[in-house]
Amino acid sequence: MGALRRKLTRAGLPGLLVTHLPDLRYLSGFTGSSAALAVTRRTARLFTDGRYTTQAAEEVDAAQVQIVSSSPAVAAAQWLAAQPGVTMAGFDPARTTVAELARWKSELPSRLRRSFLEAIPAPFVELLRMVKDEDELAVMAEAALVGCRLFDGILNFMRPGVAEMAVAAELEHQARMLGAEGMSFETIVASGARSAMPHGRATAALLPRRGFVTLDFGIILRGYCSDMTRTVYLGKPGPGERKAYDSVLEAQENAVGAVVPGAICAEVDEAARSVLRREGLGEAFSHSTGHGVGLEIHEPPRVGAGQRTRLAPGMVVTIEPGVYLAGQFGIRIEDMVTVTRSGSQVLTAAAPKALIEL
Amino acid sequence: MGALRRKLTRAGLPGLLVTHLPDLRYLSGFTGSSAALAVTRRTARLFTDGRYTTQAAEEVDAAQVQIVSSSPAVAAAQWLAAQPGVTMAGFDPARTTVAELARWKSELPSRLRRSFLEAIPAPFVELLRMVKDEDELAVMAEAALVGCRLFDGILNFMRPGVAEMAVAAELEHQARMLGAEGMSFETIVASGARSAMPHGRATAALLPRRGFVTLDFGIILRGYCSDMTRTVYLGKPGPGERKAYDSVLEAQENAVGAVVPGAICAEVDEAARSVLRREGLGEAFSHSTGHGVGLEIHEPPRVGAGQRTRLAPGMVVTIEPGVYLAGQFGIRIEDMVTVTRSGSQVLTAAAPKALIEL
Repeated sequence: MGALRRKLTRAGLPGLLVTHLPDLRYLSGFTGSSAALAVTRRTARLFTDGRYTTQAAEEVDAAQVQIVSSSPAVAAAQWLAAQPGVTMAGFDPARTTVAELARWKSELPSRLRRSFLEAIPAPFVELLRMVKDEDELAVMAEAALVGCRLFDGILNFMRPGVAEMAVAAELEHQARMLGAEGMSFETIVASGARSAMPHGRATAALLPRRGFVTLDFGIILRGYCSDMTRTVYLGKPGPGERKAYDSVLEAQENAVGAVVPGAICAEVDEAARSVLRREGLGEAFSHSTGHGVGLEIHEPPRVGAGQRTRLAPGMVVTIEPGVYLAGQFGIRIEDMVTVTRSGSQVLTAAAPKALIEL
Repeated sequence: MGALRRKLTRAGLPGLLVTHLPDLRYLSGFTGSSAALAVTRRTARLFTDGRYTTQAAEEVDAAQVQIVSSSPAVAAAQWLAAQPGVTMAGFDPARTTVAELARWKSELPSRLRRSFLEAIPAPFVELLRMVKDEDELAVMAEAALVGCRLFDGILNFMRPGVAEMAVAAELEHQARMLGAEGMSFETIVASGARSAMPHGRATAALLPRRGFVTLDFGIILRGYCSDMTRTVYLGKPGPGERKAYDSVLEAQENAVGAVVPGAICAEVDEAARSVLRREGLGEAFSHSTGHGVGLEIHEPPRVGAGQRTRLAPGMVVTIEPGVYLAGQFGIRIEDMVTVTRSGSQVLTAAAPKALIEL
């Protein structure tokens, strides 16, 4: 909250209305699904509804709590407008719908409707969240390690004829048994020609006798997300398949090596992309190299072409190049990587990346 | 798509930009996580990125598909602006952020920036989605039935000393084994005094020797959500606990009885609320009676005080009154109910509601 207040002061903002739930959790500890947080340079107040009376009292210590029977965000905006010295308040235009803003404005005193709420120039809280502190890094390392254990366990379960969905079910069950609160996104199990879909959910399709299977999954541990991908082979890969795998692996390791403090995200992306381009697979790598991860599965920074953010110690990004050949196969390899003072640390290092043949 | 076009014509809109993913799935069949759909009175075009080339070709038949390397929504807005006769296009202000709108506008030809995009007066697609067709109702009935089977199965697993999270894990594993694509929200297992939190996630807390346990969960089946809640008792309830349970059950059944075509949502809410008020539990019922459910876990209509939507055949709503006494206990009972021509059908009827003592 102190770092946020310094940012507000620097931006000349006397108040901030926070409605994006991960931001709110980050600042206040509250984990419910309906709330708004009003922050001034002196104090902070969390507004939520009657379903969360008990929970808010247990979870929130960095802000006062007020239970309201109408919209928490409207109440927060009105409260900010009533604070002495708070002549205006910022809101995050990327996390506020056009309809919400219209509603908040309409319920302010008429003299404040036009100018009291102002879009902030940068997502202050999300940018704070980019750099994780020691406690956060410890949780994320633990979450990543659970991911590696899950990968190790699921290898014994995968064989031709098992449905993709059964693989996902088993993996998710083990995740729960290892303490996950849930999965950080819908588990991807894409086998055979389906592996050419980068985001192919697990379906009723059966694992083939021969072919790639891509597993992309993450767990949520104490609010923080893990994210990893491994692609394994059922049977014996042909020379073209093995070559493509080796190219993706080289691209991935090259990009991991480019993760150092001070590096620009676009350079990390290029470190992966240049390898695949050289192998004639540039077109087949149809997405960005990675993304930040934390309380949300996708956070800043984006690790893609044209992204100018500089990596700093405490940031956690995914490095996940892939190649996708429609009708044939797909391959993706993904690690979570923490930027350290001296370089980087791969959080998912316990899961091997050399091609596994099952 | 025909019904949507009639709505557009009636609203005088030559085009519509659809970016909310459940709306997009409803109209086009596309299930990916990044896309925009442009609809005119003559044609429709879906924009997505290179990760979804294969998937879009498989899933989409009601629209042309165009793969883009930048923002699908920007591409869709630009395409709409280039269509002959399309002088303006609607967007849903409740599903569009302030930042998105600013970006879309900034990438339109300058003469169109001010007036081409206009907030639609009502969420056309979401309102269409309120009334389910036969195919949708069949899937939802199946999803609800899976929910009942899960409840039946989990009763054997629940006993004092088992962690709430283990209960959630077992239930979610069984859900997968019964064909669920995932859970429709984070499973709630709230035991003992924690049951006084209406949205108490499953934690490491152990089920007590004696006390209520509230289970609130739903599955996703072919895209459609189920939602149900049952509250059971471990041990023998005291007379006050039993009386509170009976009050909630009476309120719930009274509200289910009020679900008939033509009824106003506020009347259904009042049917539950009036019973609890009479029992001195009005204050302890701290949320609305229910909500629509379908491709999303929360959809229109809202079944709450002041809600004027009239129920119509094909709508599916939850009926879920509860009472929450902080520090003591909570009770909630929830069914999914379809509005039929002659009254209603409870989709979760296979799960008993008389108090179960374990």
